[in-house]
Amino acid sequence: MKATIKDVAKLAGVSFKTVSRVINREPSVGEDLQRRVWAAIEELNYQPNLSARQLRGAPGFIAFIYDNPNSHYVIEMQHGLLAECRAQGYELLIHPLNSRSDGVQEELEQMLSHGHIAGLVLTPPFSETPELVAALRRRKLSFVRIVSGTADPAENEPCIFVNDYQAAFAITDYLAGLGHRRIAFLGGEDIHRSNMERRRGYLAALADRGIERDDTLIVPGEFNFDSGAERTRQLLTGDPRPTAIFAANDEIAAGALFSARISEVAVPQELSIVGFEDSPFSRQTWPKLTTAHQPNTAIAGSAASHLIASIRAARQGTDTATDALPDNGFLPTLVVRDSTCPPAQ
Amino acid sequence: MKATIKDVAKLAGVSFKTVSRVINREPSVGEDLQRRVWAAIEELNYQPNLSARQLRGAPGFIAFIYDNPNSHYVIEMQHGLLAECRAQGYELLIHPLNSRSDGVQEELEQMLSHGHIAGLVLTPPFSETPELVAALRRRKLSFVRIVSGTADPAENEPCIFVNDYQAAFAITDYLAGLGHRRIAFLGGEDIHRSNMERRRGYLAALADRGIERDDTLIVPGEFNFDSGAERTRQLLTGDPRPTAIFAANDEIAAGALFSARISEVAVPQELSIVGFEDSPFSRQTWPKLTTAHQPNTAIAGSAASHLIASIRAARQGTDTATDALPDNGFLPTLVVRDSTCPPAQ
Repeated sequence: MKATIKDVAKLAGVSFKTVSRVINREPSVGEDLQRRVWAAIEELNYQPNLSARQLRGAPGFIAFIYDNPNSHYVIEMQHGLLAECRAQGYELLIHPLNSRSDGVQEELEQMLSHGHIAGLVLTPPFSETPELVAALRRRKLSFVRIVSGTADPAENEPCIFVNDYQAAFAITDYLAGLGHRRIAFLGGEDIHRSNMERRRGYLAALADRGIERDDTLIVPGEFNFDSGAERTRQLLTGDPRPTAIFAANDEIAAGALFSARISEVAVPQELSIVGFEDSPFSRQTWPKLTTAHQPNTAIAGSAASHLIASIRAARQGTDTATDALPDNGFLPTLVVRDSTCPPAQ
Repeated sequence: MKATIKDVAKLAGVSFKTVSRVINREPSVGEDLQRRVWAAIEELNYQPNLSARQLRGAPGFIAFIYDNPNSHYVIEMQHGLLAECRAQGYELLIHPLNSRSDGVQEELEQMLSHGHIAGLVLTPPFSETPELVAALRRRKLSFVRIVSGTADPAENEPCIFVNDYQAAFAITDYLAGLGHRRIAFLGGEDIHRSNMERRRGYLAALADRGIERDDTLIVPGEFNFDSGAERTRQLLTGDPRPTAIFAANDEIAAGALFSARISEVAVPQELSIVGFEDSPFSRQTWPKLTTAHQPNTAIAGSAASHLIASIRAARQGTDTATDALPDNGFLPTLVVRDSTCPPAQ
């Protein structure tokens, strides 16, 4: 027998008007109650009347906008977004864009003209591109940005911050604490603000430990395996060599590990290597990588949750409570494994 | 100045009625002409009138349904689907489902009740689940299935086939050709038909080479790193040991490589290892993995292309031309790298 709205109300222990409010995504119902109602809807496989929902502006599609060659990052972000979308009855649309192409804004506009998109989640570099953000603001579309940093007081719309600076400080401080003085920094592209923040954290920790900055050890490049391998190969021909490498992501670190192996430099005995992200393969390399765990799924879940709150607020003409956002952002935390040790004497 | 439909027609060198047909996704326009019109639309940033399009059943959302823990596979599939969706003016929605949960069909129904979904792309195991396929067929929804095999004459709707059997035969034959006789097969879950097809290809190649089947070398498990590592650890305690391992995917192979390293068994001198998929990390291990290249992006692109053709055909009430599908499916091809060599004497 087909479940009715009254069955859902009974199972959830609420009035059927509350069930209706939840289905229509009205903001007046608390999160706990909403989850109870959605759980009852799922358990009973209740099918809300579609035309009524459409009149209210449902269904909700959220679009995830990104440009990132890192599969693990993209998949973890998708997981986090999907979990929150599912809990709140939204569907997720994915729309990668090429940040190096001229027509990004036009393509975004074209996508939005398809209609039915309730809001956007923007990741770097788009979230950190002022022109794009201004264009979306003019369009009065709900969106949330994931950005590297800790505060952006000039902006009014919600941002999810990732504290790359502090995490990079902790990594560098850990290496210095082991006794390393020649610590190389293998960065990625500066189009990602996270790269600048990580380098800034690296430099601050060196200064804090009284280690002089050596620009020959700060090697620009790309956030990928080949770039990490090539730069490490070159660094290892230097004299004196670095005794530690802080790679700005795990792929660069994997490349560094590969080149150390080819150059017959023992890791960690002759060279310590640290990555950043804690992607699955950082636990599958030999030796396993010391890295910083970046809570991508939680970051994405938080982004979706704030976006949905802001969509609801926009529909009701109320303000979104941005003060609920964490003050110092999400902090990636150091995970010590087998690729680091004190330097050889 | 805002571009008009006449500007698009002029640039594309067609009548404005043709532009209108393309925008409304009518099937009467050839693929080449369609691409020319879309290119002109993009170049001029022409914004079609939304309400007119909505009346015709646009916009087109395609949903990608999957349950696969392999990030690379999912990302490559998404790339292939997105490329084709973009070329044809569709947006891609992603909806992973848990194939082990009871409510898969209900969840799918709930998603479809959101409306606006023009068609589905199903990957294993959903594409290989008869009840689910039958339910979708009853609903008269356009969908395309990616399945492991070469033919399924009982089915009328289009399938994209992947010839895992022949690829596994080629891998095993290659190892036998190097002189290996004790070749272990580390499979994944049988819920994936690809696993059964790969095992079938392995067994057929052994028989073809006159090598007797040894069931102690056929070790069931899961399609992941830990399962590959654990099974290899156990196999390497055996006497005699296998001289080669055919891992049913690259993650199992990476686990095998890891355990060989821990057990101080030299790869490839004492143990050859072959993976399956050619995921990016198969080029980043030490030694680099011999594997089979699975053309995931092309498989997904073909799936999206056939799905869109079948959506158009359904809207026009015509039949879809399934005879355009490749007869023997997509064939993963052997890629020889550094993890294989003849067995030691």
